[in-house]
Amino acid sequence: MWRRIRSPILFPAASKKLELLKFSLLLLFIQCFLFVLFVAFGAYSLRADASSPGNSITPVFGGFNHARFNIVARFQPMFQDIHVMVFIGFGFLMVFLKRYGYSSLGFNYLLAAISLQWSILCQGFFELNDDYKIEIGMTSLYRADIATVLISMGAVLGRVSHIQLIVMSILEIAAYSVNYVLNEKYFKAVDVGGSILVHTFGAYFGLSVSYILGRQQKCLYDDFDLSVNLQKPTYTSNILAMIETLFLWVYWPSFNSIDLENDRAHRAVINTYLAMAASCVIAFAASQLSSKEHTFNMIHVQNSTLPGGVAIGACAHLMVQPFGALLIGMIAGFLSVYGYNTVSFFLKRRLAIEDTCGVHNLHGIPGAFGGITAILLAYIATEQQYGKTLYQVYQARASPEISPNTEYIVLETGDGRTASQQAGYQTLLLVVTILMATVSGLISGFIVSLRWWGDASPETFYEDSVFWELPSEQQEVQYHPPPTWKLKEKLYNNSNVNMSVVCM
Amino acid sequence: MWRRIRSPILFPAASKKLELLKFSLLLLFIQCFLFVLFVAFGAYSLRADASSPGNSITPVFGGFNHARFNIVARFQPMFQDIHVMVFIGFGFLMVFLKRYGYSSLGFNYLLAAISLQWSILCQGFFELNDDYKIEIGMTSLYRADIATVLISMGAVLGRVSHIQLIVMSILEIAAYSVNYVLNEKYFKAVDVGGSILVHTFGAYFGLSVSYILGRQQKCLYDDFDLSVNLQKPTYTSNILAMIETLFLWVYWPSFNSIDLENDRAHRAVINTYLAMAASCVIAFAASQLSSKEHTFNMIHVQNSTLPGGVAIGACAHLMVQPFGALLIGMIAGFLSVYGYNTVSFFLKRRLAIEDTCGVHNLHGIPGAFGGITAILLAYIATEQQYGKTLYQVYQARASPEISPNTEYIVLETGDGRTASQQAGYQTLLLVVTILMATVSGLISGFIVSLRWWGDASPETFYEDSVFWELPSEQQEVQYHPPPTWKLKEKLYNNSNVNMSVVCM
Amino acid sequence: MWRRIRSPILFPAASKKLELLKFSLLLLFIQCFLFVLFVAFGAYSLRADASSPGNSITPVFGGFNHARFNIVARFQPMFQDIHVMVFIGFGFLMVFLKRYGYSSLGFNYLLAAISLQWSILCQGFFELNDDYKIEIGMTSLYRADIATVLISMGAVLGRVSHIQLIVMSILEIAAYSVNYVLNEKYFKAVDVGGSILVHTFGAYFGLSVSYILGRQQKCLYDDFDLSVNLQKPTYTSNILAMIETLFLWVYWPSFNSIDLENDRAHRAVINTYLAMAASCVIAFAASQLSSKEHTFNMIHVQNSTLPGGVAIGACAHLMVQPFGALLIGMIAGFLSVYGYNTVSFFLKRRLAIEDTCGVHNLHGIPGAFGGITAILLAYIATEQQYGKTLYQVYQARASPEISPNTEYIVLETGDGRTASQQAGYQTLLLVVTILMATVSGLISGFIVSLRWWGDASPETFYEDSVFWELPSEQQEVQYHPPPTWKLKEKLYNNSNVNMSVVCM
Repeated sequence: MWRRIRSPILFPAASKKLELLKFSLLLLFIQCFLFVLFVAFGAYSLRADASSPGNSITPVFGGFNHARFNIVARFQPMFQDIHVMVFIGFGFLMVFLKRYGYSSLGFNYLLAAISLQWSILCQGFFELNDDYKIEIGMTSLYRADIATVLISMGAVLGRVSHIQLIVMSILEIAAYSVNYVLNEKYFKAVDVGGSILVHTFGAYFGLSVSYILGRQQKCLYDDFDLSVNLQKPTYTSNILAMIETLFLWVYWPSFNSIDLENDRAHRAVINTYLAMAASCVIAFAASQLSSKEHTFNMIHVQNSTLPGGVAIGACAHLMVQPFGALLIGMIAGFLSVYGYNTVSFFLKRRLAIEDTCGVHNLHGIPGAFGGITAILLAYIATEQQYGKTLYQVYQARASPEISPNTEYIVLETGDGRTASQQAGYQTLLLVVTILMATVSGLISGFIVSLRWWGDASPETFYEDSVFWELPSEQQEVQYHPPPTWKLKEKLYNNSNVNMSVVCM
Repeated sequence: MWRRIRSPILFPAASKKLELLKFSLLLLFIQCFLFVLFVAFGAYSLRADASSPGNSITPVFGGFNHARFNIVARFQPMFQDIHVMVFIGFGFLMVFLKRYGYSSLGFNYLLAAISLQWSILCQGFFELNDDYKIEIGMTSLYRADIATVLISMGAVLGRVSHIQLIVMSILEIAAYSVNYVLNEKYFKAVDVGGSILVHTFGAYFGLSVSYILGRQQKCLYDDFDLSVNLQKPTYTSNILAMIETLFLWVYWPSFNSIDLENDRAHRAVINTYLAMAASCVIAFAASQLSSKEHTFNMIHVQNSTLPGGVAIGACAHLMVQPFGALLIGMIAGFLSVYGYNTVSFFLKRRLAIEDTCGVHNLHGIPGAFGGITAILLAYIATEQQYGKTLYQVYQARASPEISPNTEYIVLETGDGRTASQQAGYQTLLLVVTILMATVSGLISGFIVSLRWWGDASPETFYEDSVFWELPSEQQEVQYHPPPTWKLKEKLYNNSNVNMSVVCM
Repeated sequence: MWRRIRSPILFPAASKKLELLKFSLLLLFIQCFLFVLFVAFGAYSLRADASSPGNSITPVFGGFNHARFNIVARFQPMFQDIHVMVFIGFGFLMVFLKRYGYSSLGFNYLLAAISLQWSILCQGFFELNDDYKIEIGMTSLYRADIATVLISMGAVLGRVSHIQLIVMSILEIAAYSVNYVLNEKYFKAVDVGGSILVHTFGAYFGLSVSYILGRQQKCLYDDFDLSVNLQKPTYTSNILAMIETLFLWVYWPSFNSIDLENDRAHRAVINTYLAMAASCVIAFAASQLSSKEHTFNMIHVQNSTLPGGVAIGACAHLMVQPFGALLIGMIAGFLSVYGYNTVSFFLKRRLAIEDTCGVHNLHGIPGAFGGITAILLAYIATEQQYGKTLYQVYQARASPEISPNTEYIVLETGDGRTASQQAGYQTLLLVVTILMATVSGLISGFIVSLRWWGDASPETFYEDSVFWELPSEQQEVQYHPPPTWKLKEKLYNNSNVNMSVVCM
């Protein structure tokens, strides 16, 4: 039997008032704390800081103001696309829940707003400049937008309180940033679309938190199926959730290519586009094949059409060839439907891991699959295939010395790795990420399930009314009959009468 | 007691047929009138006009066709973002009303379509070229998209007819353009994101119109609370309204940075992003703190998460530092929730000013707050902080003579203002804008409430059925049971039978 | 009486199991077939292929890596806009159907995913390189996104099975590509926004298929009005369908300008923007004028506000002047409403052509009108109007020899056509497109109505439950009363109790 690790004595019942205000106060505290950190560490990056001389001096004299330095024109469109994915895509992703639409949208919004500030700081702490400042620029913004937290949220949504979500996201971003920097500094593995760093990490972190929460909640309550009915969608909520699917689908090429230039960006767009198309088709086919009634399942359409983008992430700019992109998408689409039909039940029955939105099937499995593909592709990458751009794709494979030949584009030095060494590091990243996500997820799960944050209890699972002022529903569906000529006539007449009587 | 300023005798009852067709005929007339004005004044701008020699000549010989002149690539992505904000953002903003979804979306759409044409003309009249033509280019388009009218519409929505909305918008754009050009030509105050020129103007104009309408409607009808119930949202309409909030939130950085270049654009994006994140967090906290039940309020989430973008507008490209952007966002978020909970009631009870969508809290207060911040920032702006880009940010502070030193980027001459002079002009702009909005709003209110346009009467407030063919609602919620094998079997069998009998 | 062209004996009843799995197996087959074709023919284009030397060599030595060659930065934003139009715009276009929302969204999604792959191949087959490979790049992607299939789908939606839709789309894209290449290679008529090639073709193809299906279905069933009720929208489904209208409206300028550069792109944006605004206003006016109740009709607002974009397509970059763009939009808006009110009934009663979404009124008539306008404009185009850019707009009018004068931008040779010759070819394109669409549509209609694909029978028309697992509807509209303090109190107490009993 599961035992709580903290005694109630350590946290004596606070006054009820405070209990209920706890969330607001925590939010205020967090925002003020973030503000203080920004006061201490925040600064504009060189190209955003008016006082940096490059912005004042004309191009001919070495200033920045030249078309090719126009960072905003370069990043803004894709940054906005990713922004849409994070706030609208992930927001509507979870709207399918019958009575949890407000919470899905609202908490996604709130978490994203907090975590992007915190993410700028967390990633910035590893790149402090000489003044111990974090230089904030376009790159910080879109990197902070990456939605690991929202993936993990999908695993536990509906069974945690808003406070628990926020605590979880603060812990997760810290762990995510460590893992990210580990790769940046040491592994130097390639993962432009975040198959491993974002999707796999987010999914396994979320599942680990869900595991701990599940054990605790199981211990407290017997009737665990109380809320199963609420986990179901309605006709309209399912249509609204398609807003999400389609926006994620549409903007994924921007997500996978924002960090890239030239032919690599070009390839990333093509590969992502093809992989997503293929995974969509296969998901439809697999959905019908696996259905008893031979109908399509909206859950599959909403989720399993997307893993092409997840899986291709780690290989988006590699020379997989168009057919390779299709193949990766096809396999990812199949794996995802298979996951919904099989793996999810296994997780739930054997390990008591609930997964509200099926993030394991949308992000976990396809992400890991993408990671494995990236290992293989790193192993077979040759200069013949990539030309000199090999050393831009796999920077660590560049020679440690700058070549005297300036005709080619290799400008930065690397570690002189071989293909199999690079494949080894790719493997390392995948393994470390899964480990890191699981361990930090378990720890976060413990912290999140501390009584002090307030539990969500099964009676309140998947239920908006706990957190939201809901409109009363009586008069919702009543409309007047279509307008009649008479009504209008009456109105005009009435107003005539009234006017003459009351006003003149 | 309130007295109508026009006698019914001046406008004798038109035939009922004409009365009802008035709107369509007015629309037709307006569109034809706009067409005639475009015939008389419309012309392509230099870079859009095929016959201007710069487009035919190669770059080496001084033609325009060079990457850095590519106006479409430069503006199109942000222009499209703003377009989304105006048509989808503002359209869905007002969908929360229970029975007014069609009107909210439809009238927003129609008003935007009219006002963008009219806006091109109004702003163009002040910049006629030597042939007395308005040169229409990218800049005209996105400037015409700016949504003052839609802000004002939010204040009166549901209590006016479509004709009244159109009359209002035509008057408003004229007033807005005068105010805009006043600043452009004389004040030269800085307001890139339109905190003052767009948001403050739009809000106070709308409130003034609402004031006049309220007095008139009060005079005509006693039972003023008839429609209160219809002002409420439903569960689904609230979710649909979140589409708006999220799209506005997401694209606001494009809105605040479209007119800027280089480091100023970069800063505008960073500042807007941070301010909006902070205002979102604070709005959530304040919403729960101010609720009796300690729940969140969807109205706050839909609206008060956005004023960060409104308030930072006037300071978007200033050196507020990241923490400054956060602070502005935090204060704006708080002010907005406070406005919904306090100021709105004051306006309604004391001044009888209704404000359907709470534009005062979303645009008015935060806009004015942004304007005040901009005064302060103008006062403390130094060359030390901004380098030579100070004279790009505050162009009026540039020396009246061109400096012989061409190393720096100051290319245009200014008025040689000091910091405090600039702050003075910023104050002037804020004061003049509020005055202008109020006075022109009151006048427009009078004109709009002229009997001739047809009143909306309280029975038709917040009610789609007056303007729209509505689907009958009986069969809406019925669906067949999930499809069964048998049904399909039957169908296949049936069609076999039919075929042999009927067709062969 | 109509006769089936194939005997049932040729297609003996397959086992029922197989019958139901047919669709999934067909999908799998298609995706695998596409995969094989991509293996055989797919290759990256020069700028996407890492092994092409231009990507490895630095700019100074003639490599591609220069800002002005940045294909992704150039196309990505507009490509994404078009992607939104295709997947979200067209997806939600058909959501207005009461019980057909899942199918509208889902099949649109699936068809688009299949047809973009197939489209890359079909168009590529005509441009094989020396290795018999199709070079896939940005251009292939956005060209494949063009949504002819989704237009035709709108004509037959609800009365065909998913299998029939897929078969139809595969046939249509083949025919579309032939027509497209015919123009590219021989007619060289100008149609940047696809008024003729996309909209007219899609509409008449869809109507032809609908004609054949109608005759067949009429033959099989007598009670043809069974499903009329299901063709109606609900209040909410109509609002959801506005998502589509607005996204199409907003992103249309990107659609019409993606293929263009410099002043032509600039003009395309301006003209499209103005034409759409005008068509929106006129559609509103015409909608009310033509209504008995003098109300607006959502079908008109959803559809007839858009034809400005359709009609201006063929003339988007021509020197129509701003007022010309307005005029085209106004006429298109009027024609479309007129079509809904008159032509649709004629088609239905006289020719028994059903048109679910009214594609004839949104795409067919305005597209043909745009085509006719383009003929006129080609006829009056002079070098005086266009300068030397005339030969960029109408490339076929350029001299067959390269002029020795390098000051001007004419770099490619043409056929030396005169204005009237060009107008002739424009006419030819319009006529050939309508013929091609009709003939290939009739043939496709025959193939699609083959019994082997399985018919949709009238009982299943406009009904999601045949294809989808639907949520049961009983508990949909019930919500708990707003949350009460007591509920929470209880929860907190309960959990305390439980904890002490069960866990400690």
